[in-house]
Amino acid sequence: MGDTDLFQSLKGGLIVSCQALDDEPLYGAETMAKLAKAAQMGGAIGIRANTTQDIMAIQEVVDLPIIGLVKKEYKDSEVFITPTINELQELINTDVDIIALDATDRKRPNGEELKDLINLAHCSDKYVMADISTFEEGMLAVKLGADCLSTTLSGYTPYSPQSDEPDYELLKRLVQYSPVPVIGEGRVSTPEQAREILRFNAHAVVVGSAITRPQLITKRFVDIINEEEEENEQESINKSKLRVND
Amino acid sequence: MGDTDLFQSLKGGLIVSCQALDDEPLYGAETMAKLAKAAQMGGAIGIRANTTQDIMAIQEVVDLPIIGLVKKEYKDSEVFITPTINELQELINTDVDIIALDATDRKRPNGEELKDLINLAHCSDKYVMADISTFEEGMLAVKLGADCLSTTLSGYTPYSPQSDEPDYELLKRLVQYSPVPVIGEGRVSTPEQAREILRFNAHAVVVGSAITRPQLITKRFVDIINEEEEENEQESINKSKLRVND
Repeated sequence: MGDTDLFQSLKGGLIVSCQALDDEPLYGAETMAKLAKAAQMGGAIGIRANTTQDIMAIQEVVDLPIIGLVKKEYKDSEVFITPTINELQELINTDVDIIALDATDRKRPNGEELKDLINLAHCSDKYVMADISTFEEGMLAVKLGADCLSTTLSGYTPYSPQSDEPDYELLKRLVQYSPVPVIGEGRVSTPEQAREILRFNAHAVVVGSAITRPQLITKRFVDIINEEEEENEQESINKSKLRVND
Repeated sequence: MGDTDLFQSLKGGLIVSCQALDDEPLYGAETMAKLAKAAQMGGAIGIRANTTQDIMAIQEVVDLPIIGLVKKEYKDSEVFITPTINELQELINTDVDIIALDATDRKRPNGEELKDLINLAHCSDKYVMADISTFEEGMLAVKLGADCLSTTLSGYTPYSPQSDEPDYELLKRLVQYSPVPVIGEGRVSTPEQAREILRFNAHAVVVGSAITRPQLITKRFVDIINEEEEENEQESINKSKLRVND
């Protein structure tokens, strides 16, 4: 698929992130493949996936563009989304269309540098999605050759806004200044938020946990149910106070 | 668990329905067990599950009360949730706490009768959840001995209100008149709707697809994203009309 065709196919659409780490109940490549198939059935136009095992299992049952990444923690760095050349090389050896990697302004493991990772990906005919947390990081990633930007890491670096909502401000600013497509990602909990992100002219929107992490979807239902109970309790307290004051 | 304890443990809580038929991407007992575990992690207080295979797999990893059912289609009837003595007996042979069965006013397969199914469940020390679609069906199920009612089938019989929303009116009326607990179930898409159902004094609320059917969750995101596009197109048309009229 050529550059134009690939990014054109993602335009205005929903990319579903299908990930479960080894301490999550849905962990396992077979289950991730089932989730990706479900996402395609529901109308997703791309899949974001972690680990080469998951990616290969997904590609057996789904024919959508895949944004691949490999999460790995290193002791000398906070960067964990495709942090080093090693994870990048694993992904280059698969059939993914786009490789997502941390492009924040933080020290990478082994003193590696972002520009070298981007160059290696390009030499291997892979596109790079730069996961960033601030406007400046996005602009730097573009300068270093990133093929698209994603707001994935806003809220996950200590110096970006800490919020439960998508970072609409970051998205708007990137859309205004970035010469490459900007993807809205991170803390998208509802269809209305996804719609809002596309309304701000994001090229596409990525939704993960709200679709593919049932433990977090359940928790969201439970939290909102309990909020109401607390409000009612608070109301009762206020009413009893009122009675005292009467 | 005694009657009081069991129903007390469900009070005000979220029951997650973990089901996938054999034409769905998440089909399989192992996957359903993973979903049920996720639901428990997220704070669910009960699980509703279909088929004895799924129920047994779920009970290996989850220690919540289980509402069991067996879906089966028969040629001579529209009733398919635990429709006959056969499926009921399968469930009696498992460790489920409550058996859900169709208690609508429709002819059952083989000319069987609801009261006989309820009696058999009770003789085998199982509680019965009557899945109904109208107020009258609920009242009849209570008379025949149902231990709780669920609004599951409103919208799924031709004579009940056809809507995309939960049937709040049915729920309110049942809560007012039923001597047994009333569970809100059916077309609960959002946490706010679940909260609304509990606000109307449902004993508990059951959520299924919105948590455990990623193909439908994805579709909901895609539909709402596309709605907006259509609105924008409509807006453009209106604006161009305006311009013509200027």
